[in-house]
Amino acid sequence: MQGKTVYNRPSWFGPSLEVTSSRLENNILQKCKVILVTKKTRGPILPPRSQVQAMSFVTLLLTILTSSQSILIVWSKRAGKYEYSVTTANFLVEALKCALSLAALVRIWRKDGVTDDNRLSTTWDEVKVYPIPAALYLVKNLLQAGLDFFLQYYIFAYVDAPGYQILKNLNIISTGVLYQIILKRKLTEIQWAAFILLCAGCTTAQLNPSSDHVLQTPLQGWVMAIVMALLSGFAGVYTEAIIKKRPSRNINVQNFWLYVFGMIFNAFAIMTQDFDAVMNDGFFHGYSLITVLMILNHALSGIAVSMVMKYADNIVKVYSTSVAMLLTAVVSVFLFGFHLSLAFFLGSIVVSVAIYLHSTNKARR
Amino acid sequence: MQGKTVYNRPSWFGPSLEVTSSRLENNILQKCKVILVTKKTRGPILPPRSQVQAMSFVTLLLTILTSSQSILIVWSKRAGKYEYSVTTANFLVEALKCALSLAALVRIWRKDGVTDDNRLSTTWDEVKVYPIPAALYLVKNLLQAGLDFFLQYYIFAYVDAPGYQILKNLNIISTGVLYQIILKRKLTEIQWAAFILLCAGCTTAQLNPSSDHVLQTPLQGWVMAIVMALLSGFAGVYTEAIIKKRPSRNINVQNFWLYVFGMIFNAFAIMTQDFDAVMNDGFFHGYSLITVLMILNHALSGIAVSMVMKYADNIVKVYSTSVAMLLTAVVSVFLFGFHLSLAFFLGSIVVSVAIYLHSTNKARR
Repeated sequence: MQGKTVYNRPSWFGPSLEVTSSRLENNILQKCKVILVTKKTRGPILPPRSQVQAMSFVTLLLTILTSSQSILIVWSKRAGKYEYSVTTANFLVEALKCALSLAALVRIWRKDGVTDDNRLSTTWDEVKVYPIPAALYLVKNLLQAGLDFFLQYYIFAYVDAPGYQILKNLNIISTGVLYQIILKRKLTEIQWAAFILLCAGCTTAQLNPSSDHVLQTPLQGWVMAIVMALLSGFAGVYTEAIIKKRPSRNINVQNFWLYVFGMIFNAFAIMTQDFDAVMNDGFFHGYSLITVLMILNHALSGIAVSMVMKYADNIVKVYSTSVAMLLTAVVSVFLFGFHLSLAFFLGSIVVSVAIYLHSTNKARR
Repeated sequence: MQGKTVYNRPSWFGPSLEVTSSRLENNILQKCKVILVTKKTRGPILPPRSQVQAMSFVTLLLTILTSSQSILIVWSKRAGKYEYSVTTANFLVEALKCALSLAALVRIWRKDGVTDDNRLSTTWDEVKVYPIPAALYLVKNLLQAGLDFFLQYYIFAYVDAPGYQILKNLNIISTGVLYQIILKRKLTEIQWAAFILLCAGCTTAQLNPSSDHVLQTPLQGWVMAIVMALLSGFAGVYTEAIIKKRPSRNINVQNFWLYVFGMIFNAFAIMTQDFDAVMNDGFFHGYSLITVLMILNHALSGIAVSMVMKYADNIVKVYSTSVAMLLTAVVSVFLFGFHLSLAFFLGSIVVSVAIYLHSTNKARR
């Protein structure tokens, strides 16, 4: 479908509707608009079956990778504190993702030949927005460091580290709000209810006897937590917008360019934060088997996130990472002898109902 | 509407559909059935406006009365332990409800005269089911006493009293299940999701640092809690069935007969449990201002429950008492200087979403 009148929906929301303007066609158009509007209020248009399969696969993959990521973090904390430079590890994650995307592309070129959609060369117009998510994540990481410092020196009397984890669930709400504002895709009322439940359920599952201290968080702490949630949500939603802007473009090319800028910004972070340490002790100082596994895992999760953005959306990503949180707790019972609290069970019930409500509402379009 | 073919819906579910069997009428009937089925799957049929107002009023009344009931209990516990006989107080509650129903009836007789629907005299066929709820509540109270004993001597090492309160939320689920089985009124999937959320939300709101002990409840404790929840749910749903069986019958007559049997069964309880104490110390031994207020409150709440059964249903009653639980906690902050926990906020959010989902789903019929 190529033509003159393109209806007011950004092209990344599926095939655009386009018609010439004879009276009859206007009539048909009117009907199509009604159908579209009806469909829109009841949920997004059904994707083709192959896309549903791809979506299910990448979502499952992301859930498993996120969960094993958390388990690796617990494991590494038990093994001792971080002795390697985090900025070099982040750089390697970006480099690895870049290399994996390139390897996938080479395979595709050999099979299908080079086309307009899978060639690596790009235009300024396509690539100009790619540095933005990378920049946002950098700002978020710097702020995170600032917040950690702030927490450690000023708030730890009130809010302990696990208490702060709870504030991170604000990400769920901020993603929903920004998803609706930036991508202009309406969540139905039931889906919003499900999203609020997801946030409340995740927080409930993480409750512990000292969680009540969160209520004493001073205003600055809340403001910082909300700003971080907005930055993180904005970066995610913006990435989705970039990836969906050109649906036919090969995801590996899109990833390649995203990760190139990720490498550049992380190189900048190494130079500003860890330059002396890297110069004196070497790039790989303090790396262990766990470090390597964590880098590998982060790289694969990063690619899975991109795939979820391509074949599903940020909402699915949020559900996936929430389920991963619950999965991690259950797996930790067996691996580390953790105990599950009543709050965890209640939170899991609420999260399950949220997922059910979200999926029922989707099926009803 | 009076006629030959009454469609497979018990008469207390609203006006029954009835037609003669000509071919044309069969056709219309087919359509009506389709509409009925469609309406049924989307929620119950809309009640008239006056009934919605009556329903809202009695629901609000029940919420306020239940909440102040809990506050009176906290107050009386602070003032010291129960020194009066609980069975005599229960008897007085039934007697007061009986007297209030009679007073209301006298007013109605003076205004409207005695009709078939508001006369006090009754038939064996009408009254034969009235002792059943009273008997069920008696069995439940006896079992409750048994469970309290059991808890005190065998389980208190594992489950503390507030922990046991949490098990009482099983009432919510049992009411939903029995409502669907006995009254054969289907809750929609969304309404079931809302009901599960209501149970999880109430439990979350009541979480305290020692709640995790509930998970160590031995099997006998669970069985007893479930049996109690089923008895309590069954008594409630059965009362609704009795009251709705004859929709035009005046509620005060129905209440009068229900409470007469309540008085009889409670007199039986006095004789078997507190006969010696009443004989030696007198019927009103240990009564205080709080006792009188509690009896008054219980009587009014009991009448409000009957009204909710008449104009709404058990589902509304469960929502109403759940909101009362949250309201009590908030009021206790001001009255007794209680603190609200993060779990309370999260539980309140989940309960609010549950109410929203239940009401949205109703409005969409």
